[in-house]
Amino acid sequence: MTTLNSPVPAAPATDPLEKFFAVIPAGGVGTRLWPLSRAAAPKFLHDLTGSGSTLIRATYDRLEALSGNNVMVVTGDAHRDAVCRQLPELSDDDLVLESEPKDSGAAIGLAAAILYLRDPATIMGSFAADQVISPVETFQDAVREAIYTAATGKIVTIGIKPTHASTGFGYIRTGASLDVPGAPSAHAVVKFVEKPSEEVAEQYLASGDYNWNAGMFVAPVELMLRHLKANEPVLYDGLMEIARAWDTPDRVAVKNRIWPTLPKIAIDYAVAEPAADAGDVAVIPANFSWDDVGDFAAIARLNNAREVDAVTVLGEVGRVFTEDSSGIVVTDTKRVIALIGIQDVVVVDTPDALLVTTREHSQLVKKAVDGLKAKGQTDVL
Amino acid sequence: MTTLNSPVPAAPATDPLEKFFAVIPAGGVGTRLWPLSRAAAPKFLHDLTGSGSTLIRATYDRLEALSGNNVMVVTGDAHRDAVCRQLPELSDDDLVLESEPKDSGAAIGLAAAILYLRDPATIMGSFAADQVISPVETFQDAVREAIYTAATGKIVTIGIKPTHASTGFGYIRTGASLDVPGAPSAHAVVKFVEKPSEEVAEQYLASGDYNWNAGMFVAPVELMLRHLKANEPVLYDGLMEIARAWDTPDRVAVKNRIWPTLPKIAIDYAVAEPAADAGDVAVIPANFSWDDVGDFAAIARLNNAREVDAVTVLGEVGRVFTEDSSGIVVTDTKRVIALIGIQDVVVVDTPDALLVTTREHSQLVKKAVDGLKAKGQTDVL
Repeated sequence: MTTLNSPVPAAPATDPLEKFFAVIPAGGVGTRLWPLSRAAAPKFLHDLTGSGSTLIRATYDRLEALSGNNVMVVTGDAHRDAVCRQLPELSDDDLVLESEPKDSGAAIGLAAAILYLRDPATIMGSFAADQVISPVETFQDAVREAIYTAATGKIVTIGIKPTHASTGFGYIRTGASLDVPGAPSAHAVVKFVEKPSEEVAEQYLASGDYNWNAGMFVAPVELMLRHLKANEPVLYDGLMEIARAWDTPDRVAVKNRIWPTLPKIAIDYAVAEPAADAGDVAVIPANFSWDDVGDFAAIARLNNAREVDAVTVLGEVGRVFTEDSSGIVVTDTKRVIALIGIQDVVVVDTPDALLVTTREHSQLVKKAVDGLKAKGQTDVL
Repeated sequence: MTTLNSPVPAAPATDPLEKFFAVIPAGGVGTRLWPLSRAAAPKFLHDLTGSGSTLIRATYDRLEALSGNNVMVVTGDAHRDAVCRQLPELSDDDLVLESEPKDSGAAIGLAAAILYLRDPATIMGSFAADQVISPVETFQDAVREAIYTAATGKIVTIGIKPTHASTGFGYIRTGASLDVPGAPSAHAVVKFVEKPSEEVAEQYLASGDYNWNAGMFVAPVELMLRHLKANEPVLYDGLMEIARAWDTPDRVAVKNRIWPTLPKIAIDYAVAEPAADAGDVAVIPANFSWDDVGDFAAIARLNNAREVDAVTVLGEVGRVFTEDSSGIVVTDTKRVIALIGIQDVVVVDTPDALLVTTREHSQLVKKAVDGLKAKGQTDVL
């Protein structure tokens, strides 16, 4: 068996694209989209763009041109059936079910470990299940460049060229251009930086040296695991133990025994930041639009073609009646909804819970969820 | 058989209170309270005050001290079962069912005709089923004075002493004091006037000569019918024909034959205004508070003790969560409703329709109903 203590294999003569395997972490409830998104029906299981596809299905479709059916999904136990309905192509062996959330270090690390033991030359790419990206071709071009760059022994993040001084994203400080065949955009990464103040964000934007960190990366699984082992040896050992049992009859028993004991840490701290410090991280700055659908204002942005007067509707447009109103209606019921003389309103109508807020306050929805939790009304969360 | 062409009987020596029979017209959808109030569940079948009683039940209870079970209800065919559930005391003989709405002239006129043929000395009092009145004792005192005044041969309206220059009500111009034993407040009525402009309303208020017309009146049925016959002979003849069949096995057949042919006219035009011109109308100015629950702002006024923060809730308070919000929530579902950072909002939540508007715009709800009708969505109207 190949282990990490063996010498790193020489870069294969094969096209790196053939070694690509996409990993889709599908976690996170999307609390700021309550009551549409909730524990039992998280964000990635909804069609938030009116495209006819759920976000996870759209993520899969976006990757398929590069990965074919080489796709692994990591999600909660509770979402098994829903994910399988969305992705009927997905093999059981490529569906990692978490019995409890353990943060991205464990989720992505386990995928890396399983893929490593199947083929140590695998290049993984991690893409969250709940992002909206367009145009798809620009995204795919960037991922292709990232795969070529990863094949040179880098963890390659895909940076989004900033269009404004956002304080809502982390940034990537970009270094020198790298000379990678097939990846003309590849640059070194100097470091990752946290969400900045407005003033700092303005400086970042003006300098041209920073890209938004969209949390997407492509990397040799071997390199991922090497950094994970160095930084989080307990997590690494546990994940490798599960991975060794994965493609055997012991998969479930071992996973159930080990998973609850794993430390919780984000992949950023466990791998990406230390790897950047070690000079092992590259970036492909890319020019596609990217939205993590963080709140209902985002839903309005992404659905602005579906307006009834000045009201953006996600759901059954024909049952929405408006008079002198503006805002957003999200409905997954068959109810008639009438808005009369109300501006910038956000109405989210579900069978067991109704939210009414404003566009301006839609970031505060998390408060409602916390409040309902405190009142013990967890049935609708 | 007594007929109107017989000489008017002399006032009986009995106490006029013994001749009193209350009539409750229960019509009108209450469109401005949609979607709570609607064709299948009109305003009077709701508890809009949080008292635990529907408006029609509260109307019955308010009258019972004076009328006992001498109460007649006029309502639509469709509301038969609901009204009987609300008023189990009601005799079938005292429930007038309209196969189609024919306005108040026919509804109140038929009640007068039936009561007249049972006992021509009856004094009827007509009180709409969807009003909120308090204190009840002050109301009852006014009705009692009205009965004594009616016994002297007057149609007696109960006027509400105005508290502000409302442009939403009709007014009654009050004349000289009448000398009626047991009715010290009785005054002659000079005339009824339509809803005034703001300027005119200010003059009315300043003069002290005007009272709001609440549409409540008490009158000898014989006098009612005499004016009806003079002003609307076709309507009068039709109503008398139904009334003659009422307490016989032919009731339904005759009603079904005649009712659809009756002219539509408000009792104000058919009786009250011509009677006032003839000097036959008196008024008891009264000091109770009176609300016809015309819109959701009224519901907030009437339920201001039931607040969650600054949000008035009519319905299940425990399922409403608010954060930095104000306004009104009316719910007859079990859904959780969360309001976040939204001011002066009106949310009306029913199983098949949802209204979101503002307190300021709640008078415009009729527009939504008209709009939905135009869209063919009559299932929720």
